[in-house]
Amino acid sequence: MARIAFGRCDDSFSLGSFKAYLAEFISTLLFVFAGVGSAIAYNKLTSNAALDPAGLVAIAIAHGFALFVAVSIGSNISGGHVNPAVTFGLALGGQITILTGIFYWIAQLLGAIVAAFILKFVTGGLTIPIHSLAAGVGAIQGVIFEIIITFALVYTVYATAADPKKGALGTIAPIAIGFIVGANILAAGPFSGGSMNPARSFGPAVASGDFHDNWIYWVGPLIGGGLAGLIYGNVFFHTEHAPLVSEY
Amino acid sequence: MARIAFGRCDDSFSLGSFKAYLAEFISTLLFVFAGVGSAIAYNKLTSNAALDPAGLVAIAIAHGFALFVAVSIGSNISGGHVNPAVTFGLALGGQITILTGIFYWIAQLLGAIVAAFILKFVTGGLTIPIHSLAAGVGAIQGVIFEIIITFALVYTVYATAADPKKGALGTIAPIAIGFIVGANILAAGPFSGGSMNPARSFGPAVASGDFHDNWIYWVGPLIGGGLAGLIYGNVFFHTEHAPLVSEY
Amino acid sequence: MARIAFGRCDDSFSLGSFKAYLAEFISTLLFVFAGVGSAIAYNKLTSNAALDPAGLVAIAIAHGFALFVAVSIGSNISGGHVNPAVTFGLALGGQITILTGIFYWIAQLLGAIVAAFILKFVTGGLTIPIHSLAAGVGAIQGVIFEIIITFALVYTVYATAADPKKGALGTIAPIAIGFIVGANILAAGPFSGGSMNPARSFGPAVASGDFHDNWIYWVGPLIGGGLAGLIYGNVFFHTEHAPLVSEY
Amino acid sequence: MARIAFGRCDDSFSLGSFKAYLAEFISTLLFVFAGVGSAIAYNKLTSNAALDPAGLVAIAIAHGFALFVAVSIGSNISGGHVNPAVTFGLALGGQITILTGIFYWIAQLLGAIVAAFILKFVTGGLTIPIHSLAAGVGAIQGVIFEIIITFALVYTVYATAADPKKGALGTIAPIAIGFIVGANILAAGPFSGGSMNPARSFGPAVASGDFHDNWIYWVGPLIGGGLAGLIYGNVFFHTEHAPLVSEY
Repeated sequence: MARIAFGRCDDSFSLGSFKAYLAEFISTLLFVFAGVGSAIAYNKLTSNAALDPAGLVAIAIAHGFALFVAVSIGSNISGGHVNPAVTFGLALGGQITILTGIFYWIAQLLGAIVAAFILKFVTGGLTIPIHSLAAGVGAIQGVIFEIIITFALVYTVYATAADPKKGALGTIAPIAIGFIVGANILAAGPFSGGSMNPARSFGPAVASGDFHDNWIYWVGPLIGGGLAGLIYGNVFFHTEHAPLVSEY
Repeated sequence: MARIAFGRCDDSFSLGSFKAYLAEFISTLLFVFAGVGSAIAYNKLTSNAALDPAGLVAIAIAHGFALFVAVSIGSNISGGHVNPAVTFGLALGGQITILTGIFYWIAQLLGAIVAAFILKFVTGGLTIPIHSLAAGVGAIQGVIFEIIITFALVYTVYATAADPKKGALGTIAPIAIGFIVGANILAAGPFSGGSMNPARSFGPAVASGDFHDNWIYWVGPLIGGGLAGLIYGNVFFHTEHAPLVSEY
Repeated sequence: MARIAFGRCDDSFSLGSFKAYLAEFISTLLFVFAGVGSAIAYNKLTSNAALDPAGLVAIAIAHGFALFVAVSIGSNISGGHVNPAVTFGLALGGQITILTGIFYWIAQLLGAIVAAFILKFVTGGLTIPIHSLAAGVGAIQGVIFEIIITFALVYTVYATAADPKKGALGTIAPIAIGFIVGANILAAGPFSGGSMNPARSFGPAVASGDFHDNWIYWVGPLIGGGLAGLIYGNVFFHTEHAPLVSEY
Repeated sequence: MARIAFGRCDDSFSLGSFKAYLAEFISTLLFVFAGVGSAIAYNKLTSNAALDPAGLVAIAIAHGFALFVAVSIGSNISGGHVNPAVTFGLALGGQITILTGIFYWIAQLLGAIVAAFILKFVTGGLTIPIHSLAAGVGAIQGVIFEIIITFALVYTVYATAADPKKGALGTIAPIAIGFIVGANILAAGPFSGGSMNPARSFGPAVASGDFHDNWIYWVGPLIGGGLAGLIYGNVFFHTEHAPLVSEY
């Protein structure tokens, strides 16, 4: 089985832990590079035109494919969170200690920031697009959008990767985790932006120096991810298979 | 092996059963949110222009990816039906009792309705697009379209997930189930809409208060899903491997 | 392991064999319905405009996803050939008898023809698009295009599904088989059409009564598929792992 | 488990080795045919218009899907490198000998060159598009782009395929390897072109006789792939699972 790190751990300073932080840094850097890069690529191809459906497909696929891979390459070392909301949701469900979670957050945020600055350099100083609410979308609406889609993401992490009962589903878990993000961007992109990930939003904000609306992408994803952790962790995690599901 | 719940069950009121209904509710809510959300996103990006090929790709991918994930996250708890036509096809093939199936339907319909109302709120009251026949497509044609594509979907559920002989195919079953919906939307979208799922069609109808053509998406999918259950269940399900397929 | 039927068989008239023919019929019908349907959908959305890149993506994804599923749902019953060129390549490599292969061909062609006629009916009599060479593409060029891309397809069938040494690769074999068709359509679509499958081309030709260029989609795919069967079957199939590949 | 050839080998002239070179030749040929073919297809459909987002999606998907398959079909014979930068990164990590690596390079380059010449013929002499820097992108920027995205690719090869601790992740390794290339093309395509593969860039350069900027696609991918080999090989490869990741 793929070895995914959701172990409870009192040792946040071991060599293995530092390797996990490095893995989170690398995975998040590579995910943000491809994801934000695809948004910059759209702007370049269209001379900063408004987003159109083909561009939305490009950006959704880039994020979906890149997150699938970022989760895969981290899964055996750090669990492949690649996202503070995932780490938070797993902490609330008791799958990772608070201290280790904090180091994960630092690694993820650093990876996203470095990715955004590299993109700024290699694109010759093009604008790094940030997540912000589309015109006409209110803050409450944006937060709820992010709550629901991040709930979907973290619930997927639980059901396919963290749950010890996952069975063969674990084999395709990274694909499911990446693709729910791709699907949700196709829905939420033109409204809240479709972040589901505070690091994905924070890195570009730092590189561009533009933090307006950034709080949305902390509040929404952390509430959504936290709810997923609480619900899945309490209702489904320790489920004994009832007759309905055990006779086959 | 992924544990997928197609067990026959006389106990529709156990704790495990209620967890299964909750899982169906959550999976259907998240699927409908992403799927219908992608259609609203297209309308927003294009100011309600007629569907174009890029938009069809966006909507097909959103549904395909989201259904793959919705099936995945439910598979170990409820079997991941996410669709009254799937539940009906499995009931006709003897894979689930009528009573449990009725509760599944209720959970699926509630999930779809809640998703549609949430979308109405978070998009600031935008029109929730419903499934209806395109101009020039007759009711018989629309029903047959939905019969064939839902037959494909439920046949896929049987062959890759419910059949005890599925073997390693079970590992990728949720991907196959999601992607046949994506492919079929690319064909049927501009004609019948490509529903394959009464809940997917019913939720938006409730939220928008517009039920015209809605019967199409009950009759077509239930006939198609039922036929798949009867044919697969009777012809292939208990197949002993004949010489052709057993020598390898 | 997924049980895929490449067994040598002297009994083409057993019950199991008839089930295999039925499975090929159903798989090919569903594949051709989605694939050709996506081409009709493009024509409807664009009022028969010339193919554009978004339309090519739509058609390639529809074929790729639908073939992945068609192979999956047939794999445990008939092997999931869904294509006379695959059956031919497997026969040349000694994986299926000639007589059984002929019945497979009949089932595949019937499935494709039925799919095309159903499409004609459900679309209200719209033109069923056939495979033909694009303007300026010569017959030799078209045949070579189809040879190479069908070689890729049948080589993939051998390496991922038919080869007893496939190991875990067999789990994702149907995805690989579907996606190489998707990729090749993105390259060959605007030239030869990107068929790789005589049944896929023959069904629409029958339904539309237009057989011009149809021979291209028999000659090219059968040569390409046959070459793949001969090369893979003779060079790689019975390979003992040499030191290079066995030390890990 | 899928048998992937990363064994150290002192016997570069055995029969098994020659089969591996042939497998690399075939895989690279088929990958380059589909990938470069998709770029030519875009040019044909649009009469050589500037790249637009739909075209970028088409090209990214073609490369992603085709590389996934090319890696799959080679994995049990040669390891499925399909890329001199992958071979180089694996050599630096001690996974393949220099001499065998040189033969791999020759096979890969020959496959890419043959693919490009076949494309020239079957498209009736259309221009074979080469990788080159977009207007306004400096050489340093282009090289760094290629370093980062090739680092992502080769790191993925290590984490999902070469690492003996990969577990079930190995089953989906070829998909991850293909899709990181698809994602990265969506980001880098409009800047450096998004090669990640000296053979993918060299074949078209030979067929078109245009080698300007070609050095970029040697220097960038070899540095990026080499860094991935050194980092993954030294930091993660022989990791003993620390408490963080072993308790679950």
